[in-house]
Formats: sequence, structure tokens, C-alpha cells
Amino acid sequence: MKALVYHGPGAKAWEDFPMPTLLADTDAIVQVDTTTICGTDLHILKGDVPAMTDGRVIGHEAVGTVTEIGTGVKTLAVGDRVLVSCVTACGTCRYCRAGSFGQCLGGGGWILGNEIDGTQAEYVRVPFADNSTYPVPAGVSDDELLMLADILPTAYEVGVLNGQVRPGDVVVVVGAGPIGLSAIAGAQLFSPSLVVAVDKVSSRLEAAKFFGADVVINNSQQDAVSAVHELTAGLGADVAIEAVGVPATFELAVDLVRPGGHVANIGVHGTSATLHLERIWDRNLTITTGLVDTYSTPTLLRLLAGRQIDAARFVTHHFGFSEFDTAYDVFSRAGDTGALKVVLTRTS
Amino acid sequence: MKALVYHGPGAKAWEDFPMPTLLADTDAIVQVDTTTICGTDLHILKGDVPAMTDGRVIGHEAVGTVTEIGTGVKTLAVGDRVLVSCVTACGTCRYCRAGSFGQCLGGGGWILGNEIDGTQAEYVRVPFADNSTYPVPAGVSDDELLMLADILPTAYEVGVLNGQVRPGDVVVVVGAGPIGLSAIAGAQLFSPSLVVAVDKVSSRLEAAKFFGADVVINNSQQDAVSAVHELTAGLGADVAIEAVGVPATFELAVDLVRPGGHVANIGVHGTSATLHLERIWDRNLTITTGLVDTYSTPTLLRLLAGRQIDAARFVTHHFGFSEFDTAYDVFSRAGDTGALKVVLTRTS
Amino acid sequence: MKALVYHGPGAKAWEDFPMPTLLADTDAIVQVDTTTICGTDLHILKGDVPAMTDGRVIGHEAVGTVTEIGTGVKTLAVGDRVLVSCVTACGTCRYCRAGSFGQCLGGGGWILGNEIDGTQAEYVRVPFADNSTYPVPAGVSDDELLMLADILPTAYEVGVLNGQVRPGDVVVVVGAGPIGLSAIAGAQLFSPSLVVAVDKVSSRLEAAKFFGADVVINNSQQDAVSAVHELTAGLGADVAIEAVGVPATFELAVDLVRPGGHVANIGVHGTSATLHLERIWDRNLTITTGLVDTYSTPTLLRLLAGRQIDAARFVTHHFGFSEFDTAYDVFSRAGDTGALKVVLTRTS
Amino acid sequence: MKALVYHGPGAKAWEDFPMPTLLADTDAIVQVDTTTICGTDLHILKGDVPAMTDGRVIGHEAVGTVTEIGTGVKTLAVGDRVLVSCVTACGTCRYCRAGSFGQCLGGGGWILGNEIDGTQAEYVRVPFADNSTYPVPAGVSDDELLMLADILPTAYEVGVLNGQVRPGDVVVVVGAGPIGLSAIAGAQLFSPSLVVAVDKVSSRLEAAKFFGADVVINNSQQDAVSAVHELTAGLGADVAIEAVGVPATFELAVDLVRPGGHVANIGVHGTSATLHLERIWDRNLTITTGLVDTYSTPTLLRLLAGRQIDAARFVTHHFGFSEFDTAYDVFSRAGDTGALKVVLTRTS
Repeated sequence: MKALVYHGPGAKAWEDFPMPTLLADTDAIVQVDTTTICGTDLHILKGDVPAMTDGRVIGHEAVGTVTEIGTGVKTLAVGDRVLVSCVTACGTCRYCRAGSFGQCLGGGGWILGNEIDGTQAEYVRVPFADNSTYPVPAGVSDDELLMLADILPTAYEVGVLNGQVRPGDVVVVVGAGPIGLSAIAGAQLFSPSLVVAVDKVSSRLEAAKFFGADVVINNSQQDAVSAVHELTAGLGADVAIEAVGVPATFELAVDLVRPGGHVANIGVHGTSATLHLERIWDRNLTITTGLVDTYSTPTLLRLLAGRQIDAARFVTHHFGFSEFDTAYDVFSRAGDTGALKVVLTRTS
Repeated sequence: MKALVYHGPGAKAWEDFPMPTLLADTDAIVQVDTTTICGTDLHILKGDVPAMTDGRVIGHEAVGTVTEIGTGVKTLAVGDRVLVSCVTACGTCRYCRAGSFGQCLGGGGWILGNEIDGTQAEYVRVPFADNSTYPVPAGVSDDELLMLADILPTAYEVGVLNGQVRPGDVVVVVGAGPIGLSAIAGAQLFSPSLVVAVDKVSSRLEAAKFFGADVVINNSQQDAVSAVHELTAGLGADVAIEAVGVPATFELAVDLVRPGGHVANIGVHGTSATLHLERIWDRNLTITTGLVDTYSTPTLLRLLAGRQIDAARFVTHHFGFSEFDTAYDVFSRAGDTGALKVVLTRTS
Repeated sequence: MKALVYHGPGAKAWEDFPMPTLLADTDAIVQVDTTTICGTDLHILKGDVPAMTDGRVIGHEAVGTVTEIGTGVKTLAVGDRVLVSCVTACGTCRYCRAGSFGQCLGGGGWILGNEIDGTQAEYVRVPFADNSTYPVPAGVSDDELLMLADILPTAYEVGVLNGQVRPGDVVVVVGAGPIGLSAIAGAQLFSPSLVVAVDKVSSRLEAAKFFGADVVINNSQQDAVSAVHELTAGLGADVAIEAVGVPATFELAVDLVRPGGHVANIGVHGTSATLHLERIWDRNLTITTGLVDTYSTPTLLRLLAGRQIDAARFVTHHFGFSEFDTAYDVFSRAGDTGALKVVLTRTS
Repeated sequence: MKALVYHGPGAKAWEDFPMPTLLADTDAIVQVDTTTICGTDLHILKGDVPAMTDGRVIGHEAVGTVTEIGTGVKTLAVGDRVLVSCVTACGTCRYCRAGSFGQCLGGGGWILGNEIDGTQAEYVRVPFADNSTYPVPAGVSDDELLMLADILPTAYEVGVLNGQVRPGDVVVVVGAGPIGLSAIAGAQLFSPSLVVAVDKVSSRLEAAKFFGADVVINNSQQDAVSAVHELTAGLGADVAIEAVGVPATFELAVDLVRPGGHVANIGVHGTSATLHLERIWDRNLTITTGLVDTYSTPTLLRLLAGRQIDAARFVTHHFGFSEFDTAYDVFSRAGDTGALKVVLTRTS
């Protein structure tokens, strides 16, 4: 088969690769019908993800068709169409028992396209297949469903739920890339009174408006803290969601919330930030970090099927599997191309 | 009357001071029968608390007797003996309506001995007296009750409850001074399976054992992270409570918790800390800060009356009001004197 | 002045009544600009509310103008336009400190038009005025605001929040009168995947659709339990909200939920119901009851100002103060008249 | 092998029975080293549990030794000593993913000694063995551990946690049999200010005192509601835990709590109760029911290992496997024999 193989920092190729085989009785082999590129994949290509080694297939999001199952797989059959989640779960360890599948101690967690071969390939081996895939619901397109592999549950769990967004809240999302837009969409499920998007790129702020931000702040042009204080009678936001992953945006998020407020970090950080405890020790703040656990995937599937979430609007570009290079190029130059999520589809 | 008056960094005096008078109809005047010194008072004397100005009375903890009430005071009568809480509460603003009295926007919060004259005096004016005092329960000594003015609710709310201590948890308290010992005592109300105290001073670790720590770690002699990992099969603690207020202890607390763990900061910080987001962004941590809100004071009063809390053991030294200089000296040299809380009592 | 005075079961009159006067320093006198009739007022007229005595003014909802304040009122001034909440709160007792104002032990709770003279009058005395009124926000009409005096916070707190409605849930509201419709509107703030309304009156089910119910079930024509099981793959609803107040509807609500589900009772009950413990002891159900506490009123005010709630659509009929008899008649024959909330407005 | 086989209402026998065999790859066969009798087993013998049929082995609690595992069992090996929990869990269904294993839709739940052959036998087949057993921790006796098969997690989850017991609470436990005593022990983990036990049998109340009840009320001699009101200044208890399973005790539990209080039903009910909604509709009550989910078993194991729980004191009688008739007799006449839990141990 063909797969997109990582060959060290800056190097990747769509090349021949051995077909995956069942390694454990709870594995399934899934033919990838459609996959996408995550911001984390760009980090991998820069060499930022230490577990990723030369010769491994990239990718952790897919919708596909089951072609083979181990003898221990109970809920899937060959031919089933499934969502392959970015998180696999042993289902038995302390964290899985508590629904924190992303922290699985039994060999799961985020391993696809990281510790094992991933989904940017014609076929992928999915460990713990019963707990790591979801049947495709009726009336939902592959494009939409693919958004539930990572981006939507991540923004919902790590941003919206960790941030404890409540009806009537003022919510600021710092960063209006795909994950920030997902947080804007997710926050709206709780009917905040005001959603504010902060970014330095105008086109992203336009997208934020389209995704439902009530107010946008370009913080290359104006001071975001002052602007949010004006909107909140000097108090600050109830919730700030960090969706970038650099120190400045995290520190801004902390500055934006009112006493008693919540800061939910979604961003993948490569360096430390400064926490101004001298300003916040007495402000009753709650700051959270997190990897997606995917406990919310069934909920999001119901919301998708019920049309409470419009996932299709995240997809800006479509490519065939042979066009991975172009797809990566378009996705990595999102500022120019307007790309949010690029979808790659099996063509044969 | 006499009062302990602040005269700029390093300067204080027990001197004549005008008797307080009612300034609002919800004020009460309370004769101070017993008061104590808080670690924060030492910060004030260093000049670290900007709201505190030359000529103001220090102190925010007292048990006393009501001598005069405004016409708007409903639940107190002259002669009532009361606990004066460190936090006063308007009872009407957004934060008070939500039980977050420490963040009062209506003129309350921590103002005694900070924004207005405090309790280290023969008499003190207590604003919003209905919401800022508690009747002395039967069978409870003034010494014990005094511990509910600040230290016990602070450790309980900002440490134990913010840290979400649960039965069976491994709880690490970083810092075994009075507030850390209070956190150890408070954590035990939830039956953790293991309470670990970390400090660099042996005498404090001895005190920690006396207050119920199961394990003590002297982190001038051993690596606390390794030691906690050994105790938890490499996983880390469920909860770490920071009870010092310097960057190193906060950063240690963050390093001590397991994925999904809680870090509750109680320490008063004068400078920023480094938050290693590159290590924790994917670890599902919750970090909290806070000023005491005193919503738990009624609960703690019941626990005190029911003998679930032994507050008396915090009191190591007694002085008369004329001995404030000695008391401050003993308290500020706690490492040498073994002082936890020093109590000053009206002598005439 | 004129007021609607209760004269024992079945008897009321719009008649001369003494002007209210300040009885406590925390009282305010409010000129009633607009008021409305609650289903509970019909219970009062039947003689079902034992605290209500002959000669007392009915009504517990109003928007008006402050004409006089006691010396202890801090946040209001004469001339302020305010919402008068159905619940008054001392702000100091155990329950008020915890935000449970409806259970006030300090002389508040639901007392207007029940234990003291109410709002269906030209003027009303409002106790604990600081904690029992809310300033009229800009851009909100009196009609809309009046819905926040009782019906919307009741349905939101006692139905939606007690029922713990979450995104993706299947929510069944039993009873599609004004309070049931409010629950439907309130549930939508949490983006359920499906809202089902159950009633025996077709016109009410039509209203339910207009207020956002996805599915309506006429349980005089079909079995509601079967219908909900069909909608939920045999499992049952996540949340059932009882909004009628008779045994049959409560028992139906219990039968409608899945294992682990929530039953939130809003209805005012005059008799006991049967709880089939033999069927539910092992089903992990949570059943709640409640009087509104009004802790959510500030949130609802923000949602109203932000247009997340459309409160105006509850108002179906308008009358002047001299038309109370007609207004009661129209409201009490809601099945025929289609009345939801009838609004009575000062005409001079 | 030998097993205790149910033969219809009133009939059972310790008789020859076919050795269990693996039916699924996730099954394990466990040699039963020690087992016990549950109150539910007495219900079964009366014919009250419809799923139980003639010819099936009774029992759902055991500590034993793994003798055979299916190919899909990952975490167990032959020879491992394990606790066999009363609840088995598929680990994959909606309820298991949420930690509600007792409501498993994938073939688990409470099935041992109910829908399939149980543990009162020399060997038992345990389905979903990875998720339904727990390794025996060091330093814990079989007697102690056996109490974690059902009684302790049931009382803790369904009584204490559902009842939301908090430090300082007044907790009333209605019924001082084994499950009520477990609730008393479990409640103490949260440091209530007062634990009250209510029963009609003096010897049980004596046991309640021994297990930590601060006050006991014999409600054949005095009115429990009056007595609890006297203890709580007329307010009522914070939490009432029902641990009997008849209408009168449930109705008493509801009457015992204060406004805002919690009623947690543990009892297995065979008939309906009356819910006095006319008295409680406005009292902000929360009433819960539940089957144990065993999500707390790992926590209880840690508490047991840490000696926060004294489980051994539940065991009043020991028998060999050949003495099942005597053991049932002693357990069923607990009023006379003082039996709490009777333990049966393999003798060869």
C-alpha cells in the first residue's frame, strides 16, 4: 500500500509501505477512506515530537472501512464504516475506567501517527478497536465525521468543558485557527452572552465571525485586555480559552479573566510561560491543561446527527491521496490560503 | 484606646489611637478580646502590601465583644461575643450572592488591617457586621475560635477544597508552616490514603507529623519529586497544595502531581513563577489560586463544635496586648521559636 | 391606592387599599408599572395556599419604579426602575449565604402575595430591597423583564439546572403550559439533541413546537413512555422535567428517564404521588424538587440583554390595571384563550 | 465440583454441579477461596428476583484464585488471587465508558448469581474478567477484601456519594443492618459533624454505636423526625441514607432532611412508596436511587490498604463450604444471632 511516511525533520514521502497486520486480538485493520492533517502533524514534521521516529506513518484522524478484525474485537465487523479517533483506549486501566482515555496507561492514548503508524495511509492498524472507533451514524458525511476524530472533541473537552463555559458567560478565545474556531463553535452549545475572538490575522478574525464570535479583537492593533475590560464593565471575561500554544497567548489568556474566572489551555506548547502569581494568587482563578480524552465523542456524534453542530464548514479544501504534498503546503500556509481543515480522500 | 499602628516598612508601634466610630449603619464596634498575627502581617511590615498606609492599624483576626451597632445591623446585639472574620462581605454584590465574599465588589473583601484599620487594637470597627462576624458557639474557647478568622478557612477553601481532595487520595502539602499544617489538618477531613509534607526545616516536618502527615520529605536533603513518585508507583500525587509563596515551591507542586491531578496554590506570591507548559499541556492538570471567601466558616464552626477539628494545637504562644513587640519577634523567628500561631489577649 | 385583594376562596376585588409604608430600613416602596398573573395565584384563589389570608394583596411579579427607600437600602435610589423578584432574600442567613434565597430563614423567601401584600397593586412594599430587586437593563422592555420575576428563573433553576441538562441530551418536558414552555426555552440554552414536549392539549403542543420542541406527544392519544423509548432506542430520556403538578405527570416523568437519568419536578403539588421504588431502586435516578432561589436571575438578565432568550413571546395578552377580572378570566381559561402570560399595565 | 444451587422459592442445596468452562475469550475461571451471603440472596431465596431460575448457583461476592483465562484476558494470569466484584463490566458500552458499570448494556452489570451462575461454589466463571476482578493487595486479608465485593462499594457509592455527604454534615442512616453500618463507616470518610442511626432493634443500634454513630434513635420508642429536629435546631438533617428497603423507612428518610437536603436510597424495594410532593415540592430536595457501579472499588482498595477503613469488623461468623445451611440460618436470623457478614471459606 501507499502511506505518508515521516523521514526526520522536514522530510516526508507518499511512498510504498508494508500493509499493516493484526498484532493483538483487539486490533482492527481499517481501510482509510478519508483523512486530514492536524496542526500537530506540522509540529511532527519540524521534529518537535520526540516519540515520532524516521520511517513511521503520520496522521491520527480518519474515517474508513473495517477490513480485518482480531478475535477479541466484539463490536465491529468487517465492512463496518467507522470513525477512527485520535485516541485509543485499553478500556481497563485506572484512567480508562475514569473516562480519561487520553491518559491511558494500558498502551493507548494518542499513539496513532506518534508511537505507532498512523492514518495518512491506505490502511491503518487500530489498537483496542472496540474502544477507539465509532460507527458512522446515518445522515452524516465523512467530511463532517472526520472533524470528530480530533479537533472538535479537543476544543470541546479541553477548551469548553475544562473552561466550564456556562449560559450567560463572556468567553474569550485567544487564537482563531481551526482549534480556536472549534472552541468558538463548542462554546456556543452553552449559550454564552458574548463570544470574543482574539487574533493578529484579519482573515482569521473574519472566520471567527463566521463561526459565531460576537466581537473580534485584532491584538496587533489594539490591547486585548483593555478591550475585554470595556466589554465587561472592567471585570474581565468569565472564561478564556488559549488556542495557540505560545507563551504570549497563554499569558494574555490569564490576564483576560475576571476574579473567579477560568483559563483553559488547549494549545500545544514547546516552551514555558510566565505565570504572574504576584497578580493572580488572590484572584480565585482556575487554570487547566489537557489532552483530549474523547469521552465526549458520543455526545458530539449525537449533536452532529441532530444538526446542533455544523462540522462541514471547517473543511475548506479537498485533495486526493496522491496530493499529500500539495495538501500539506496549503494547510501549512493557512494565512495565505485560508485553509482550515484540508480533507484527503481515497480516489480508487 | 491602644492599637498596633503601621508606620511604613519595618515600623510599627503599640500606641494611642482614636476609638473607632460607626461610619455606616451596618457597622459594629467590637472590643477585641483576643487577636493573633498572620504571616501576611509580616508581609505588610516589609511594605509588600500596597493598600496599607502609614498610620493604619494592623490585623485581620479577632474574637471579641460587640460594644456598639449601627441601626442597620440585624443579627447582633451589644454584648454578643463574636468571631471577627478576616473577610467582610457586603452581601449584595455579584460575588457575595455567589458566596465568593473574598472578592466582594461592594466594599468588602479582605479590608481589615489592609484598606481600613484592623484588629490588633483594643477596639475595631467591623463593616457589614451581619455578614462578617459569627457568634461564639458554646463550648469553644477563644483560642480555638480565633483559628477560624483566617488560617483554617484559608487552608480549607483555597487548599483542600480547591484541590478537590477526595477519600483515598495522595495529598502532598509543600510547606509546613502554619498554613501548611492547616492544610494537612483540613485534608484529613476527606480521608486521604496518604498525606505527605515537604519542607526544608526539620522542626516543621516534626510538626507536620504531629498534625497528621503520614510521610515527611526534607527537600533540602532529598528530591521531593522522586520521593513522591516512589510512593505512588511512578504516577505522582493526586493533589499538591502550595503553602509557601515562592516560585520554587509552586513549580515543585506542579511537578508533583499525576496526570489529571490538582495543584492548589495558597501561598501569597510577590513574584512570578515559571509554568512549564511544554511539560504539562497534555497532562490534564488543574491549577487554582485563591483568597479565602469564608463560605466555609459555618461548616468549620460545626466541625470545631463537634471536635472534628483540633484548633487549639495551632496556638504555641500567649501574650498580653502590651507585648506585641515580643509576639511579633517570636512569630517572625518561627524556625527558632517553634511558633505556629501566637495569641494576644486583652489583659484588662 | 387600588389593589387586587384576596377575600377567601374564590373571592377577589380590585379595590381601595392603604398605601404601603416602610416597615424596616431595608424596605423599598415600588410603584408597580406592570405585573402579571401566575398559575400559583389561581391556586391561591382556590384556597390552596394556607399562608394567604383574607384581606391580603395578591401577586409576586412586577416591574416598577422605586418611590421610597429605607435608610438601610444601599443600592437603590428613588426613581430607579426595577424588576421585583418573586423571592426576597435577607442576604445573611445560612441559605442566603449559599445562594438558596428561596429557602431564606431570615424573613425572606416567597412572601410577596403570600405572607405579605403582593404586587397586583399600584404600590408594593419590597422587603430586603437590595437583594430582592434588579435594575432594569438598557434595551429590555418591561414585558420581557417581567418574565424574569418568576417563570423563567423557576423553569431554569428548578427544571433545567436541577435536571442537569447537558449538550446532546434528550429532554422531555411533561406539561406545555407557561412553565413547561419556559423549561423548553431554558433547556435549549444547553443544546440538547432532542426536546420532547408531552401534553394532552393540542394547542399547548402547538405552542411547544413554536418554543422549540423537536417532537410533541399528545398523551391522551398515545403512550408517552413508548413514544420516548422509540426515540431513544429503548433507553429513555436523559432528563424529564415535570411542569404540571399532579401525581400522574410526576409518575410519568419518572417512567420516562433512562438509567442514570434526572427527573426535575417544577410542578406545585397538592397531593402525594406514588414512587415506584420497586422499579427504580437500581436505576441510578436523581429526582429533585425545588422552589426558585433566583440565583440565576443575573445570568438570565445577561441572556435577555444579549438576546439569547426571547421572553416577549410568552406575553399573549395585555390589560390595564382596571381589567384584573378579565385578565384572570382569560388566564384561567388558557385552554380556550391560548393565554400564556397576561400582562397588566398601569394606565395612568 | 460442589455449589449452592437455587431450586425455586425456599429451596437450595449444596450439591454436585458441573465445573464452569470458558464461554467467551474474556472469561476467567476462578476457584472460590472465600465467599459470603448478601441480603439480596435472601430475597432470591424468597423468589423475589425474577431473573433467577431453578438450577442456578447463588452468590455474587468472592475472593479467589484464577485457574483458567480466556485468550482475550490481558491483565490476569493463572494463579493470581483476585477479588471478584458483584458487578461485571463489558468496558465498552455507553455506561461502562462513563464509569457506570452497574448499568452495563454490553452483557455485564449484576449478573453473577442472578442471570448466570454465581460465587457460592467451588469455582465460578467470571465474564469480562479484566474489568470485573481486582488483584488482592499486599497486607489485606481475604475477610477484609471480601467486604469490597458488594457491601462497602454499595454503601459508599449509593449512600455516601449519592447523598453527597460533606464535612460538617448531619447524616442520618435509617436502618442499622450490614448495609446501614457500611454507610455509617463510609460517611465518616467525609467527617460529618454528627452521624445518627435509626433502627427499631436495640442490638443493631448498639452495633451502630460501635461503627461510629454519634447518636442512635430507636424509632419503635421515639419519633425519629422529632429527635432529628431537636438535634438540628428544627432544621432537619443534611443527608438521610435509606438502608432498609421498605416504604416506611424511605418515607421517613424524606421527612428527616432539611430544605436543600439529600435522600440517598440504598434499600432494595419490592413495593412502591408514597412521595409526599405536597410537602416537599418547594423544599429543594434531591432523592437518588442506585445499584452499585463499583467505580469506587479502586479507591476503597487504597483506603483498605491504608487502614482508613476497618472492614474486618463486619465479619461476625465463619463457616466452611459444607456449612452453607447453617450459615444461611445464622445470617437470616441476624436479630437473634447478631450476624453482620458471615464468611464461608474453602476447607480443602
